[in-house]
Amino acid sequence: MNKIRLVIVGGVAAGASSAAKARRCNEDAEIIMLEMGSDISYATCGLPYYLSGIIPERSHLLVATAKFFKQRFNVDVRTRHQVLRIDRSAQKVVVKNLVTGDLAEESYDRLILATGSTAVVRPLAGANLPFVFTLRTLEDADRIYEYLKNKNQDTAVVAGGGLVGMEAAENLAHKGMRVSVVEFMPQILSFLDREMAEVVRWHVQSKGVKIYLSEKLRLIEKKDGRGLVRTDTGRDLPADLVIMSVGIRPGTKLAKDAGLQIGVTGGIATDEFMQTSDPNIFAAGDCAEGINLVTGKPGLFPMGSAANKQGRAAGANAMGRRIAVKGFTGTVIVKVFDLAVAKTGLSEKEAVSEGISSLVTYVHPADHADYYPGAKGLRIKTISDRSSGRLLGAQVIGQKGVDKRIDVMATAVYNRMNADDLLQLDLAYAPPYSSARDPVVVAGAVSQNFRTGDWNPITPAELRDKMERGDDFVLVDVRTAKELKKTGIIPGAVHIPVDELRDRIGELHPGKETILYCAVGLRSYVGSRILAMKGFENIKVLTGSIASWTYPIELYRS
Amino acid sequence: MNKIRLVIVGGVAAGASSAAKARRCNEDAEIIMLEMGSDISYATCGLPYYLSGIIPERSHLLVATAKFFKQRFNVDVRTRHQVLRIDRSAQKVVVKNLVTGDLAEESYDRLILATGSTAVVRPLAGANLPFVFTLRTLEDADRIYEYLKNKNQDTAVVAGGGLVGMEAAENLAHKGMRVSVVEFMPQILSFLDREMAEVVRWHVQSKGVKIYLSEKLRLIEKKDGRGLVRTDTGRDLPADLVIMSVGIRPGTKLAKDAGLQIGVTGGIATDEFMQTSDPNIFAAGDCAEGINLVTGKPGLFPMGSAANKQGRAAGANAMGRRIAVKGFTGTVIVKVFDLAVAKTGLSEKEAVSEGISSLVTYVHPADHADYYPGAKGLRIKTISDRSSGRLLGAQVIGQKGVDKRIDVMATAVYNRMNADDLLQLDLAYAPPYSSARDPVVVAGAVSQNFRTGDWNPITPAELRDKMERGDDFVLVDVRTAKELKKTGIIPGAVHIPVDELRDRIGELHPGKETILYCAVGLRSYVGSRILAMKGFENIKVLTGSIASWTYPIELYRS
Repeated sequence: MNKIRLVIVGGVAAGASSAAKARRCNEDAEIIMLEMGSDISYATCGLPYYLSGIIPERSHLLVATAKFFKQRFNVDVRTRHQVLRIDRSAQKVVVKNLVTGDLAEESYDRLILATGSTAVVRPLAGANLPFVFTLRTLEDADRIYEYLKNKNQDTAVVAGGGLVGMEAAENLAHKGMRVSVVEFMPQILSFLDREMAEVVRWHVQSKGVKIYLSEKLRLIEKKDGRGLVRTDTGRDLPADLVIMSVGIRPGTKLAKDAGLQIGVTGGIATDEFMQTSDPNIFAAGDCAEGINLVTGKPGLFPMGSAANKQGRAAGANAMGRRIAVKGFTGTVIVKVFDLAVAKTGLSEKEAVSEGISSLVTYVHPADHADYYPGAKGLRIKTISDRSSGRLLGAQVIGQKGVDKRIDVMATAVYNRMNADDLLQLDLAYAPPYSSARDPVVVAGAVSQNFRTGDWNPITPAELRDKMERGDDFVLVDVRTAKELKKTGIIPGAVHIPVDELRDRIGELHPGKETILYCAVGLRSYVGSRILAMKGFENIKVLTGSIASWTYPIELYRS
Repeated sequence: MNKIRLVIVGGVAAGASSAAKARRCNEDAEIIMLEMGSDISYATCGLPYYLSGIIPERSHLLVATAKFFKQRFNVDVRTRHQVLRIDRSAQKVVVKNLVTGDLAEESYDRLILATGSTAVVRPLAGANLPFVFTLRTLEDADRIYEYLKNKNQDTAVVAGGGLVGMEAAENLAHKGMRVSVVEFMPQILSFLDREMAEVVRWHVQSKGVKIYLSEKLRLIEKKDGRGLVRTDTGRDLPADLVIMSVGIRPGTKLAKDAGLQIGVTGGIATDEFMQTSDPNIFAAGDCAEGINLVTGKPGLFPMGSAANKQGRAAGANAMGRRIAVKGFTGTVIVKVFDLAVAKTGLSEKEAVSEGISSLVTYVHPADHADYYPGAKGLRIKTISDRSSGRLLGAQVIGQKGVDKRIDVMATAVYNRMNADDLLQLDLAYAPPYSSARDPVVVAGAVSQNFRTGDWNPITPAELRDKMERGDDFVLVDVRTAKELKKTGIIPGAVHIPVDELRDRIGELHPGKETILYCAVGLRSYVGSRILAMKGFENIKVLTGSIASWTYPIELYRS
């Protein structure tokens, strides 16, 4: 072992992981971890839950302390120390002690940049008012927590409907505040496809949180002693508290100033060993790029899970190892009130922007056998390559079993599985946990049915476009009369229950494009098979059927 | 489309799946489904829960009725019809109407055997007493249900501690009965390795159910108006109710009599298209073999999930399609009181019997971030090929998140992943669902540490053997004094807390075999790295440490 001097800039997820791993690879190294904040190794992802009291104690957020890192890993942790500059030729960093203001130099043999990300702050009148916060660091959370102790804070505006924005909105609502979310884009949770995000929006609104899409903040002000937000549509929203959560960007200033290569995504460019363009400097966590395993292109994966992996590899490799981080499938999950909302791989819109012609399927099975108590519906969207069949991505929304299905999908995407082979997976079945046909297996069967020519889907978006264009086709609702009474029918559809289809087939026209739908897509598939084998040449099934139809509900009020 | 005449023998999981799929492939076929029982397509896996009332209505178990199959799929369903014989040369079956006793012949172009499995009944004095039942079919459950209406039934003996036996025991206990399980083998749940089964046994016993291992029933009798079971050790157990659940065997009588090839497992031999040795006859479900995807050998996979897949393929292929069932990874899950208990791939003992030298790891992470409320511990065992690194199997036990981890493992095994690459999986992380290091990722990291030479495990079984042999080695407990006070120390171990190891390294001997343990295996790993880099040549870490130590607890009472 040799006495390598390792300096790590940043001590939260990636920094702390890299320090611990570096020590396990080299007992004799000198390891110095420099962190701007007062704490290291805290749970960034827990911050919103600390605000609501769901995580009751600040101490629960502290995964490890500086003292612990000294004792366990013999790491010299210096909090409230900011690295101002890297001198690559001299292999030194210039460090400012934020408490004393003193400047000092630290030499390094290897340097790891774990500088995280910073909240995007857009220029905005009133953005510096004392009730306007970002929620990125533990210190941000401390400030909000302190501010909320004042009992008169009962309205909040969250600017940005992304992951942290939605978590913040839920937790503030949980505290009893009236919360509005203002989102610049036409949808919340931009990692989802829009129609899936709509499902989440309805749910959030049903919980009393207001969401304003395609709007942005124009100004924040204090009026009659209360905070107020005005949006660019002229809407005024009461806001005793404003959380700015409009995005994050990788913390690359040090790297940029030092002339390290920055990738197309804006993150520090690294190879799979987390090595930057300077072989003595590694980068890990939110500040660094990773490889998107679906596209093969660099991407940003600002998740704690990615930071831990990259940090671990950077720590090992800074000590001379060669541990690879192969890349990421872009898996995301977020709790939004009663729903879990998850995605892995590419969304449909990402597939479009990659120029891939994709097959989109929706299925809506229960999370476990519906004859066993407590089953809840799932909404699963899969995106696969229409020609090769390769599974590109999936989105899952539901109350239970969402995390399981997205993790299976993530493992399938990692392994470059074909969507139809999801049918082959031998997933665990007992009534409390799944159905004899697991939801993932159902999605696989649906894809296989496409590939064998037994099922030809049309998505809700495509059907809506056809309707708007006034295309000539027959739309058939194959549900029961009882169901129609409850939900109405899509205007223009004819109604033939699937069990009457064999007898009433004469009411339809074999030469005409015929589109079938039902409640979730199973009966319309069965119906489409009957028609296909009786000479109908152009049949489509509305994938996911009524359950996937997230366009304005008025459309099918009868 | 042509007018194929398809006869299906059996109408529960595989039979019903095959009928529905056959119809979707051929609208003109004549499809006849012959079922011995009164009901088709019912939820066999729900039967134990019906006994306890957790599934409150019998009707909930009926997935589909004969009437439904006629209406939806135009299938001619005949219940209470038993097929007595297959005449392959004439392509006919001889059928007995169990209601009228009439015999008839049905010709077929294609035949699907979905004859399921039957409960093994061993010759035993008293086995025909009216309070002795098997629990395999809905009619079995009906009989038990009826019998239990009598309020004086408050003791039960379950013969056999397999899946159904444990489910029966739990549900009878749930009803308020005093339950004993008598298991012939030295462990319950034989799909598990023994030390994992021990964890389940402790849990079951903590719920008041008695378990007797390595015992079997010698006789059943009625004494003083109450039932009684005597085991081969002379133990008498009160038994108002006896459930015989000592195993199942594939229902192959028809196939055997007809001269179809029976596989080495005792199931009907099929190819991946579910075709038997007679090209006009297909088999699916419990009666048929499948391919074990780990070993490549035929196996029996008597699960509803397998039956559905095989039935679907058989139905399609009987209509001329070529849909493959690639095989199974042998995934199993069972709820046992508060625990979920699951396995996929090979167990350690199965790996041994396959002649594979395996690497065994245990990890004990929480199901989700421990700073978010409600986290529960998981116990994960992985088995991988020591030379190639290929993941062979996993076992998971815990209160929450077990089904998720086993399904990820099953997907990994299906894809022939290396155990260390579990570390690469991009699994969904948010505090309510997982940790930044998901338990599966932790298992991957541990395997990678082995492969990079940073971690050299010894299993609890191997350590116990070394202790019993009196090998010369130093055992080091690196936990805190406080922890030791709580649980005691493994006799003979020296105590050096990991954070003191750097200072007290002189108390150990670099030349001597040194085995470290802690609570779950993390600190002992850290400690082993310190020693390794200070010249210790033969260090091992007790994988899973105290948490994996399932040998008699007295061992480490201090």
